[in-house]
Amino acid sequence: MRELELSVRTGTCRILLGGRLEVLRELAGGRRTVVVTDPTVHLFQGHRFAGFDVVEIGLGEASKTLETVAGLYAAFLERELDRSCLVVGVGGGIVCDVAGFAASTYQRGLAFGFAPTTLLAQVDAAIGGKNGVNLEGYKNLVGVIRQPEFVLADPSVLGTLPEQEVRCGFAEAVKAAAVADRGLFEFLEAHADQALRLDSEVLGSVVAGASSVKVAVVAEDEAEEGRRMILNFGHTLGHALEKSQGLPHGYAVSQGMAAAAALSVRAGLLPSGEAERLEALLARFGLPLAAGPEAWDHVLEALGKDKKRRGGDVRLILLERLGRAVARPVPLREIERWFDDLRKRR
Amino acid sequence: MRELELSVRTGTCRILLGGRLEVLRELAGGRRTVVVTDPTVHLFQGHRFAGFDVVEIGLGEASKTLETVAGLYAAFLERELDRSCLVVGVGGGIVCDVAGFAASTYQRGLAFGFAPTTLLAQVDAAIGGKNGVNLEGYKNLVGVIRQPEFVLADPSVLGTLPEQEVRCGFAEAVKAAAVADRGLFEFLEAHADQALRLDSEVLGSVVAGASSVKVAVVAEDEAEEGRRMILNFGHTLGHALEKSQGLPHGYAVSQGMAAAAALSVRAGLLPSGEAERLEALLARFGLPLAAGPEAWDHVLEALGKDKKRRGGDVRLILLERLGRAVARPVPLREIERWFDDLRKRR
Repeated sequence: MRELELSVRTGTCRILLGGRLEVLRELAGGRRTVVVTDPTVHLFQGHRFAGFDVVEIGLGEASKTLETVAGLYAAFLERELDRSCLVVGVGGGIVCDVAGFAASTYQRGLAFGFAPTTLLAQVDAAIGGKNGVNLEGYKNLVGVIRQPEFVLADPSVLGTLPEQEVRCGFAEAVKAAAVADRGLFEFLEAHADQALRLDSEVLGSVVAGASSVKVAVVAEDEAEEGRRMILNFGHTLGHALEKSQGLPHGYAVSQGMAAAAALSVRAGLLPSGEAERLEALLARFGLPLAAGPEAWDHVLEALGKDKKRRGGDVRLILLERLGRAVARPVPLREIERWFDDLRKRR
Repeated sequence: MRELELSVRTGTCRILLGGRLEVLRELAGGRRTVVVTDPTVHLFQGHRFAGFDVVEIGLGEASKTLETVAGLYAAFLERELDRSCLVVGVGGGIVCDVAGFAASTYQRGLAFGFAPTTLLAQVDAAIGGKNGVNLEGYKNLVGVIRQPEFVLADPSVLGTLPEQEVRCGFAEAVKAAAVADRGLFEFLEAHADQALRLDSEVLGSVVAGASSVKVAVVAEDEAEEGRRMILNFGHTLGHALEKSQGLPHGYAVSQGMAAAAALSVRAGLLPSGEAERLEALLARFGLPLAAGPEAWDHVLEALGKDKKRRGGDVRLILLERLGRAVARPVPLREIERWFDDLRKRR
């Protein structure tokens, strides 16, 4: 087990790489503990946290709501939890987001930790202290930033993930590499096949590499006032696609990254060969690169709404090279022109 | 206008004593601003924040709920607020608590400030960064600690308060004096009549004195891991009374303080003359001292529930003298014995 530490204003988080779920008992350290999970994780991994008091939330993005949080409050109240207790989210990004927000706001903050069970949550979602829920279809509109005590990344849980779930995880790993770690990018290129076969050693290195990027960036800018924004690479366009097309998060982010890389090339920032390498790696992980014209219409509409507030420019994360990202205002008209070119080429 | 500064982990708060509501425009400094208030404050003070976009919440403790917070989220969403905007709670403790919690959790935290319009909110509730709502009848069960940018304490709004509201404010002012400022206690004794006549100079001194106590205590222990607990003097017993008897907060706290002072005397900590001075001052402010036997039965029941978790002792804030408080475990049996003595004396 290797350990990273993220120490910031809202707390200190231990990231335990290669730890086993069974370590939870040790991490609880005798505190009264409630595990928050979902029915699938409970079914597949429940035997590994047997003995803990377990509360289930519903499956999927539809459960990432204030109503689910209110249900957790009721469960905490029923169990008379107080600030000496611990809440552990065991599951994917949604479980971690909801459990973290409920724990952060119950009695003005209970201690909490995560055992992320998806690749996406291990490389990205569980780290960094952002938590919260959606509101009226808007993603993460309600939430706080507060660090979990620990993030326990157990590689053994990844073997049973469905293929789509794994691909979404690789999308965020590629993102971390593209914005801040050229070495990780090259490692992903060299080991994509083993990674796709869920080779545990390679997966362990991918999780460690992406976690290290996230820890370094968040340590510098927890509140996302500057550098943390680079982690939104592919996400501004991706979120718009995710919302309008109902795509899985990682698929939408993959399309968003391909688009942002193309815009980086058009802006004269990124050599076109680097954009091609990014597209090639995403494609090897089975991730989609291009959305259809009707999807881009929705994105333009969403960005247009943004435009009203920001005067014609959209703030995007662009690449200067693989491993280095910058935030740049991109004129909406330039994005429209690129979309038009895309349409013509079809 | 005099200014105190409270600088802690979750932010820095300027407390503007003697400022006028009209200063809000200056404090907003050109930011898009939403004022959260209630219908009564809107009616009496609305002309002083005319021009601001105003959102009303319902009156009273019944509005201090997650549903009200969700209503504010919807209002923020409708107005497309983002992190460049400002939310200002103008009202009593409930408005400040609800507005502060909604702002602290919307988009992981908008900037917010308060203009408290009750004496209780000026001397206590608006300062210190605690915010949140009740859940299933439990007070402040959901919330976070996050400092407002500013607390604008305008003495001119206090002149129109109903008598009960004023008395509740004095209860918290007496509390601040009793736990940490003997000079303020003596000032209150010497100027009780002017204070009750709402003499603005005396009220200004009371607000300044109580605010200073709160700022000093919170600066030392924002997260209430130690010294901040002294501000709960009268509140452990008071909350139980408030809940079971439906008393106004300040009335319940007054009875709780009288009880805690009596228990301090019985514990050999406080000279009985000091407890008598406390009771005399509370009585001069028209605050109740003793609850009936049926009320204490409810308190015992509530404490008994606590007992299960903490093994026979109740942690109370006791006084060593007027102006100095300590946290002490008090055996539940000792409290029961005192209640029995009270019953016999009736």
